Amino acid sequence: MNYSHFFIPTLREVPADAVIASHRLMFRAGLLRKLANGLFAYLPLGLRSFRKVEQIIREEMSAIGALELKPSVVVPAELWKESGRWDSMGESMLRVKNRLDNDFVVSPTAEEVFTAIVRDELSSYRQLPLALYQINTKFRDEIRPRYGVMRGREFTMKDAYSWHADEQSLDDTYNAFGRAYRQIFKRCGLSVIPVKADSGAMGGSGSEEFMVESDVGDNTLLLCKCGYAANVEKAACAADFKIESSANTPAIEKIDTPDIKTIEELCAFLKMQPQSFIKTLIYRVFNSELEIPGSKDREAFVAVAIRGDLDVNEVKLAAVLKASEVNLASDTDVTRLTNAPVGFAGPVGLTSLPLIIDHTVTAMNDAVTGALAKDLHYKHAAYERDFKAWMIEDIRTVKIGDKCVQCGGELYTKMGNELGHIFKLGYKYTRSMNVSYLDENGKSQMPTMGCYGIGVDRTLASVIEEHNDEAGIIWPVSVAPFHVIIVPIKYDGAMKEAADKLAAELTKLNIEVLLDDRNERPGVKFNDADLTGIPYRVVVGDKGLALSTPQVEVKRRSEKENFMLDCDKAAAELAERIKEELAKK
Amino acid sequence: MNYSHFFIPTLREVPADAVIASHRLMFRAGLLRKLANGLFAYLPLGLRSFRKVEQIIREEMSAIGALELKPSVVVPAELWKESGRWDSMGESMLRVKNRLDNDFVVSPTAEEVFTAIVRDELSSYRQLPLALYQINTKFRDEIRPRYGVMRGREFTMKDAYSWHADEQSLDDTYNAFGRAYRQIFKRCGLSVIPVKADSGAMGGSGSEEFMVESDVGDNTLLLCKCGYAANVEKAACAADFKIESSANTPAIEKIDTPDIKTIEELCAFLKMQPQSFIKTLIYRVFNSELEIPGSKDREAFVAVAIRGDLDVNEVKLAAVLKASEVNLASDTDVTRLTNAPVGFAGPVGLTSLPLIIDHTVTAMNDAVTGALAKDLHYKHAAYERDFKAWMIEDIRTVKIGDKCVQCGGELYTKMGNELGHIFKLGYKYTRSMNVSYLDENGKSQMPTMGCYGIGVDRTLASVIEEHNDEAGIIWPVSVAPFHVIIVPIKYDGAMKEAADKLAAELTKLNIEVLLDDRNERPGVKFNDADLTGIPYRVVVGDKGLALSTPQVEVKRRSEKENFMLDCDKAAAELAERIKEELAKK
Repeated sequence: MNYSHFFIPTLREVPADAVIASHRLMFRAGLLRKLANGLFAYLPLGLRSFRKVEQIIREEMSAIGALELKPSVVVPAELWKESGRWDSMGESMLRVKNRLDNDFVVSPTAEEVFTAIVRDELSSYRQLPLALYQINTKFRDEIRPRYGVMRGREFTMKDAYSWHADEQSLDDTYNAFGRAYRQIFKRCGLSVIPVKADSGAMGGSGSEEFMVESDVGDNTLLLCKCGYAANVEKAACAADFKIESSANTPAIEKIDTPDIKTIEELCAFLKMQPQSFIKTLIYRVFNSELEIPGSKDREAFVAVAIRGDLDVNEVKLAAVLKASEVNLASDTDVTRLTNAPVGFAGPVGLTSLPLIIDHTVTAMNDAVTGALAKDLHYKHAAYERDFKAWMIEDIRTVKIGDKCVQCGGELYTKMGNELGHIFKLGYKYTRSMNVSYLDENGKSQMPTMGCYGIGVDRTLASVIEEHNDEAGIIWPVSVAPFHVIIVPIKYDGAMKEAADKLAAELTKLNIEVLLDDRNERPGVKFNDADLTGIPYRVVVGDKGLALSTPQVEVKRRSEKENFMLDCDKAAAELAERIKEELAKK
Repeated sequence: MNYSHFFIPTLREVPADAVIASHRLMFRAGLLRKLANGLFAYLPLGLRSFRKVEQIIREEMSAIGALELKPSVVVPAELWKESGRWDSMGESMLRVKNRLDNDFVVSPTAEEVFTAIVRDELSSYRQLPLALYQINTKFRDEIRPRYGVMRGREFTMKDAYSWHADEQSLDDTYNAFGRAYRQIFKRCGLSVIPVKADSGAMGGSGSEEFMVESDVGDNTLLLCKCGYAANVEKAACAADFKIESSANTPAIEKIDTPDIKTIEELCAFLKMQPQSFIKTLIYRVFNSELEIPGSKDREAFVAVAIRGDLDVNEVKLAAVLKASEVNLASDTDVTRLTNAPVGFAGPVGLTSLPLIIDHTVTAMNDAVTGALAKDLHYKHAAYERDFKAWMIEDIRTVKIGDKCVQCGGELYTKMGNELGHIFKLGYKYTRSMNVSYLDENGKSQMPTMGCYGIGVDRTLASVIEEHNDEAGIIWPVSVAPFHVIIVPIKYDGAMKEAADKLAAELTKLNIEVLLDDRNERPGVKFNDADLTGIPYRVVVGDKGLALSTPQVEVKRRSEKENFMLDCDKAAAELAERIKEELAKK
C-alpha cells in the first residue's frame, strides 16, 4: 500500500480534551476522528488495528468452542421488560420509539437477546453446554464520555453468554474463558491485572475483571506483592483487631458532648483516636432480597456501625443485603428514625432499626458512640454487653496500608480500567425469561448461565497506552496496522526501484507494507513513521544502495539502534522475524 | 467443525409470513431467527455466509483503492440538519434523544458523516480522488418490513462515497465501482440486471441500479432483448405516434357529455378509443427548483396533459419539475383551479395553470378533451392550434408492449429487488456542508461526489433465492458456510476413523469442513445436508471402505449424480476442485 493512496491525516495539534496518551495519539496519528461527544469514526489506519484486535478475539473464542452470532443492534423492549431490566437499567440505556410508537433499545449488552434465542432452540441436555458470542455495536449513554474511545458512548464489545446443565460445566466454561481472555490480552501485548470483582448491575456471583493500570481508570484496585488483586468495591483485608473480653470495661456511661457531631470533633474533644469510636450511619436500602425488619414497598432502613477510622463500602453493603442500591438516609429520616439530631446515632439502645455491624465492631469492648440524643455520647460501650447486632459482615472499605488477606503483606493501590469481565450469572435470566430443557430423565430443568465481555475499543486504546513514547505509538506486531514501513530517502531512481522491489517481495510473503512514496523531506517521513508506530522501519538510501553489497537500514520502532540488511535478503529476514513474533501466543 | 458442536437448529415448520424461498430457507436451515418485526439475528451458520459476502465486497473495494472507515452507527443530528435531510428524510429515519435531550440519528445512510470527515481533512487537490467506505449497521424504519432480511428494519450496508476535482475523475471512479459491483455479484453467483435508475431521495443525476429478479421485488423493470433495462420510474420508450398537421381538422366544438367523467365512460359514449382523448390531471408540486408560475411558499399547481391511453409517471414528472414530490391535487383544488367539477379538466382555454404536456400530446391533432365546464367536452381539439404548452416532456409511464428506445423491440417487464446502487451525487452535500480544497493554482474549489451502496443482507438472501430447490439451499462455493460436509453413515469404528481423517486432511488444505458426527439416521443427515446446502457432500460408508481400494461417495449439491473418490486421494481432489471454483473471479 502506497502512503499517498492511503488516508492518514496526521495532526500536530490535538483536541484540548485529549488528556491521555491513547486519545492524543489516535487523533495525531490519524487513526480516529470525533463525530460528537463520545461518538467517533475509525479512519483506515485505526480500523486496520481495530480489526486485528477483533480477529484475535475471534480466534480465541473459536479455540474454546464459542460460536459467533449477529443479532440486531436495535432490539425490542419486550425482551428487556421480560428480564426486568427495562426498569432497572436507568438512563444509560438508550431507548427509542419507532414510527409505530413501539419501544426499542439500542443494545447496551445482550443477555436478554441471547437468552431469548436459546430459549426457543434449547430442548435437550445434549445441546449443553452452549457458548455463543457476538462482536457488535453497543451504546451506553455515558453522562461524561471522555478519554476518546476509552469511555465513549458507542463502542464495540465482544459479549459471550453460556448455558449449562450444572455448576461444574459452568465452572469449566468460566475457566476456559478466563484462559482465553489472558491469551487475548497477551497476544495484544497488554499487561492485565485479573481481579476478583464485584458484579455491579449484572447480578449473581463469581466474577473476574481484567484490568489495565491507568491514571484515569474508573476503578481503584488493591494489590499485594503476593499477587492478590481486588477492586475496592469488593476488596477484603486481614483483621487488624483482636477480640477481647469486656469483663474489665467500666460500665457504660453518658457524657456531654455539646455541639459535637463528627468523629474529628469528638477526637479533639475527648483527646482520643478515631479507632476508639463506633461510627453509626443510617442507610436506605432498595429491593433487598432479604427480609429486613420494617421493610415496606421494597424499601427499608438499616443502621450500620463500623470502627471510627474506617469507611463503609456501599457496594459491599448492598451485596450483603442483596439489594439493588443503598444510599445514606436523609437528615429528616435519620432524625425521625433515631429520635435524635444527625451526629448522635449509635448502636446502644437502638430499637427502631436493624443493626448491621462490621467485623471490626465485634472487637470493640470500650468504645465511644452516639447516645441517640442531642449533645450526648456514651463511653465504655462494649459489643455484646451493651448492644447486639442483626448482622455481622465485612463492609469496610479496604485502603492503602491495610493487610493482605492472603499473606498479611501491605496493600497498595492503583487505578485501573476494565477491559474484560467474566461472570457467573446463575439463573437470573433463565428464571425471569423461562428457559428450560429436558434432562437425561426427561425432566424439565433450568440451565445456569455465564457471561463474558471484552471492550474492543478500550483494548485497542490500552495497547497504545502501554506502548508509546514521546514520538508516537509503538505497535506490537500483532495489532499493528502495517508490519513494515519502507521509507525511501527520495522516491526516485534507484531508491524507488529498490523500495518498490522490497515492498513487492514482502507483500508476496504476506507481510503488510506501507511504502512512503510521498514527496516529503526524510525528516517528515521519519516523524510520521514514528508517530504511526509501525513496528519495522526500512530506510532505502543512496548510500546503502551504493555499497558493494547494497543494503537497507532497518529500525525496530521499539528499539534505539538500527541495523543493516542486504537488499536481497531483507524481505526474507524481515518476514521471518515478523512471523516469529506473530506465532508467539 | 463437528456438527454436534455447532449450533444449527433446523426447522420443519417455518413462520407463516415466510412467503419467499430465502426467508423460508434461512429459517429452516438454521441461518436466521427473528427478534421482532424486521429485526433478526444471524445464527452461526448464516453468519459464516454473511461474512463471506462482506469479505468479497471488501476485496473488490480494496481492488479499486477504496479505503474502509468505521464511523459510529448513532450519529449527531447536527450533521443531518446541515445537509437539510433532518427535515426531508421523513419517518423512515429513526431519531433518538439521549439523556441530555440531544438529537441523534440511527444511521440510515452516511453521506453526511463521510462528508463531514472529509471536510475536516481535505485541503489539497493532491488528496483527490478519494474513495471511502464502511460496512456497517443501518436502520430504516420500514412501515411494512417483510420477506425476512430482504426488507428488514436493521440491515448491514456497504456504503462508499467518493470526492473528485472534476467530472472526468468522478466518471472514472463511478465506472470502477460499476465494474467492482458486477464482479462482487458474479463472485456471489448472482445474475444481476444493471438498470439505469431514477435517483429517488438521493438527488443529482447519473446512476445505475443492480437488480435481481424477484416476484416480490419493489421495482418494476422494463427490459428488452437488446439489453435495454430500466426502472419504470425512469424508463423511456420509442415514440408510438406521428406528428401530423391539423390543417384538415374540423374546428373545435363543444359536445354534451352528461354525467360522464372517466375516459372509459367517454369511450363508450362516443364509441372511440382512449388514444383519441387528451387526459388532463392537476398536480400539486412541492419544492420545485423551477420558477413555476403561481408558485407560493415552495408549492405550486400544474396541469398535466397526456394521451388518454397512457398514465402519467409521477417520478418522471417530479424529475422534470426538479421537485421533491408531486401529488394529485384534491377535488376541492381541482374545482377551484379549473372552475369545473372533477372530470372536465382540459388544456383548451386553461389560463389558471401552467400546462405540461407529454410528447404524445404534440401529435394530437383531432382529440376529445374536457371543456372546463360540467358535462361538456370538446371534440376536434388540436395541439398548437387550440392550446399551447408551458413545457413539453416525456412523462408517460412506460409499460409492457411499448417499443424499446434502443432497438424498437417490444419491452417486457420483471419485478426486481435492488441489491446495489451507484450514483453521481454531484455537489449536493459538498455545497450544503461547505467542503472545499485548494486547486493547483491555490484557488478554493468544491469537490464533486459519488456514492455507492450494496445491501449485504439482501445480497445474501438473493443468493439463496437464485440457488435453491425443494430440498433446500444450493450454495455457490464462494459464499457457502462450509465447503464440504462429511456424512459418515454411522460415526463409529472404521467410518469414524475415515471421516475424521478426511476432515483433518481437508482442514489442513484450508477447506472448511462440517463433519456430521451426530447419532442420527443417514436419511436425517442427508436431508440436513441438502437443506443447509453445503456444496460438496462426502458420504463415508462401510461398503465404500470395504472395497479393495477404499472409496467415499461425493455428491455436488447442485448435481444429481454421485461419483466415487479413493479415500487417500479424496482430500486433494476435493481441495483442488474447490480452490479452482474460488479462484474464478
